Amino acid sequence: MTPDLTAKRCEIASRTSTAEAALEVSMSALRSAPNRHTFVRLFDAMALAAARAVDAQHAAGAPLLALAGLSVSIKDLFDVQGQVTTAGSTVLAADAPATADAAAVARLRHAGAALMGHSNMTEFAFSGVGINPHHGTPANVATAALDATPRIPGGSSSGAAVSVATGAAWAALGSDTGGSIRIPAALHGLVGFKSTARLTPAQGCIPLSTTLDTVCAMTHSVRDAILLHEVLAQRHVRRVDRPLHAWRFGVPETALLDSLDATVARAFDRALGALRSAGAQVVPFALREIGELGQIQSTGGFSAAESWTWHRHRLAAHGAQYDPRVAARIRRGERMSAADYIDLLQARQHWIARVEQATVGFDALLTPTVPIVAPPIAELEASDDAFFAANALLLRNPSVVNMLDGCALSLPCHRPGEMPVGLMVWSSALRDDAVLNASLAIEAELGVG
Amino acid sequence: MTPDLTAKRCEIASRTSTAEAALEVSMSALRSAPNRHTFVRLFDAMALAAARAVDAQHAAGAPLLALAGLSVSIKDLFDVQGQVTTAGSTVLAADAPATADAAAVARLRHAGAALMGHSNMTEFAFSGVGINPHHGTPANVATAALDATPRIPGGSSSGAAVSVATGAAWAALGSDTGGSIRIPAALHGLVGFKSTARLTPAQGCIPLSTTLDTVCAMTHSVRDAILLHEVLAQRHVRRVDRPLHAWRFGVPETALLDSLDATVARAFDRALGALRSAGAQVVPFALREIGELGQIQSTGGFSAAESWTWHRHRLAAHGAQYDPRVAARIRRGERMSAADYIDLLQARQHWIARVEQATVGFDALLTPTVPIVAPPIAELEASDDAFFAANALLLRNPSVVNMLDGCALSLPCHRPGEMPVGLMVWSSALRDDAVLNASLAIEAELGVG
Repeated sequence: MTPDLTAKRCEIASRTSTAEAALEVSMSALRSAPNRHTFVRLFDAMALAAARAVDAQHAAGAPLLALAGLSVSIKDLFDVQGQVTTAGSTVLAADAPATADAAAVARLRHAGAALMGHSNMTEFAFSGVGINPHHGTPANVATAALDATPRIPGGSSSGAAVSVATGAAWAALGSDTGGSIRIPAALHGLVGFKSTARLTPAQGCIPLSTTLDTVCAMTHSVRDAILLHEVLAQRHVRRVDRPLHAWRFGVPETALLDSLDATVARAFDRALGALRSAGAQVVPFALREIGELGQIQSTGGFSAAESWTWHRHRLAAHGAQYDPRVAARIRRGERMSAADYIDLLQARQHWIARVEQATVGFDALLTPTVPIVAPPIAELEASDDAFFAANALLLRNPSVVNMLDGCALSLPCHRPGEMPVGLMVWSSALRDDAVLNASLAIEAELGVG
Repeated sequence: MTPDLTAKRCEIASRTSTAEAALEVSMSALRSAPNRHTFVRLFDAMALAAARAVDAQHAAGAPLLALAGLSVSIKDLFDVQGQVTTAGSTVLAADAPATADAAAVARLRHAGAALMGHSNMTEFAFSGVGINPHHGTPANVATAALDATPRIPGGSSSGAAVSVATGAAWAALGSDTGGSIRIPAALHGLVGFKSTARLTPAQGCIPLSTTLDTVCAMTHSVRDAILLHEVLAQRHVRRVDRPLHAWRFGVPETALLDSLDATVARAFDRALGALRSAGAQVVPFALREIGELGQIQSTGGFSAAESWTWHRHRLAAHGAQYDPRVAARIRRGERMSAADYIDLLQARQHWIARVEQATVGFDALLTPTVPIVAPPIAELEASDDAFFAANALLLRNPSVVNMLDGCALSLPCHRPGEMPVGLMVWSSALRDDAVLNASLAIEAELGVG
């Protein structure tokens, strides 16, 4: 297992290492080649000061803070006091620096994080692919070890994933509106946890969909995901030590298992087999409600309407500066009527109630996070059709959980030498602790990472 | 003071009367002349059975239920099992009978109410005037004693007010989206309490604005308002015995004191004077945020968008059956975009935060409920201009509280022989108990009713 933040924190707590020494390693990873395009701006001096402050206080006898002066990257969607927030765009480059930290950034800082910089992302968090025509696309570092073709990092939290995978950060602050934490985590063999949206604060974060956005983090391990969630949500996750044979998992078959590529299908089947061998109940069932989502969102969906609301005046003034693929998606919200939007809100509530009813007998649900391994960047840059087809496939499974107002964790389920594949453990709203505890048990059984 | 439900309940509790005897009095009031147009359908047999069941159980030693078998009218917006709900329209007359009680109706029934019938209302709860071209307009019974001109009852809960004012019901279930409980209460010298919307269930009630609608009741007294609220919200109101000199009331001057007619101005000034004489602090202040509401709602407002969403298919099929004044107001929602609606939601949240900040030093706020006494029905039937001008005046003050997501109680502040005038005691969300306790103290001081 790759060392995780929790392990590094133990070293600092036991004084076998220091935050400053750990930060030097992160800085050196940052300067290494694969990190090109990972950050859009760096906060090196501030990060170093934070690490040193943690060391000094710890040396003077103060308790070690939760994040121990370790490096955390901040998606370029979150305000950091004194820095401009640009959301992976050039449209906001001339904006004034933020006068205060976003609420999530302040929580990380108070917990002793060394903020490394603003990580690159898909412009305004649109798309699960991770291609950015303004700042360059950080190539997938997990697939680079297996295959010479530069592959997509996944998005929209693209730089977030690369920062963690390369060791430039121990964890990454991001957001998830339709999979933006879980998709890059899955394509990198990392852990991405999208909590129930209302548990973490959105204040100071540029919105994509005010209804669906979730502020959350990417990490090396499930225990790190719990630690970061506890910091971001300012709540305690109740750990239960429950053996796998006491868990009952549902595997919804409608739509979510369609079009799996061979690598994903093999890894997912193997993971279910391993859980069954360990005694878990793994129960396929239809969950036909998944098939209604196309109709429910046929008038445009939340992201279109809500991003159009936020962007419409900027698009009128600076439309030419937008990635045309992003502008096209935002403009889909222009024609949506208030009545269609209100119908969508109500249809979502009814749909959530039906899904909650249909899944009430399961501790959590299991599906592949995404049905494909990371495709080559060049193929998706060359063709709008290929780009939008891949994007739709990448968003298909994760976005179900955002519509459900639920929670989901993606953890790796491939073997060494295989392309990364994510297993998504998910449930409905406020069942975060069940998902996190199930994920701990599954991670321990699968032994990947 | 007119006997109220609480007093009648005491008689039944002490066995000096029975629910059945009380119901006979209500039935006889119901058959009297001023009740023409008050109800659109009666549930006499069911009401009688309910009163007898309460008496029988009480006689057998069971505790007397909260509403003691006394008559309550149900606005024609709420489902009553086995009855058609028509919302004061003819469009829904051929609909199937309700298969279950609305949640609020079920709570009344469980508390021992004798449901008298569906009370008349403005079609689909539009307008504060109370004119209904389909079922007739119940004339104001409070002004009838003073003046031969038939005057408006106020709306939209028009029959609700008349049912209580005539004694056909001890309390009336209604709804309040922009004043629909408080306006008819004020124009009848009754008490109308609009709680914080989220405290009472809207399930089984035809919506006007899903954002602003509040399920609530009209009564003879503040103590009855507390009793009905406790039943509808299934919560306990904490009573505090706090003398008037310990209360600090704000009187917002922006817009809400404009265009008062002489009767209202005199009664309001006299009420403030009486409260000051009793030692209360009564502090005029600007509350300039009231002046922003026109701009915030300039693209249409919640009722337009949300009623258009509910009605658009019915309007297309049965537009000719609608009151043209109602259809015109619903159609204002047709042109509203999703972006305008989302902007409205966000602007409302920011506005609420500013108003809460500006009023934090007051226990409650005081304004006239409506700036005018009840105008003659004939004038408003004759002219669209007069109708819409009166409607705007009637809604102006009460609707501020719905936009605030707040709570408000209207209680009478006129003297015998004067046209009824309502004093509105109001505050922000979830300060219901403060408003109710302040209203108890004010009612005791003013001694009206």
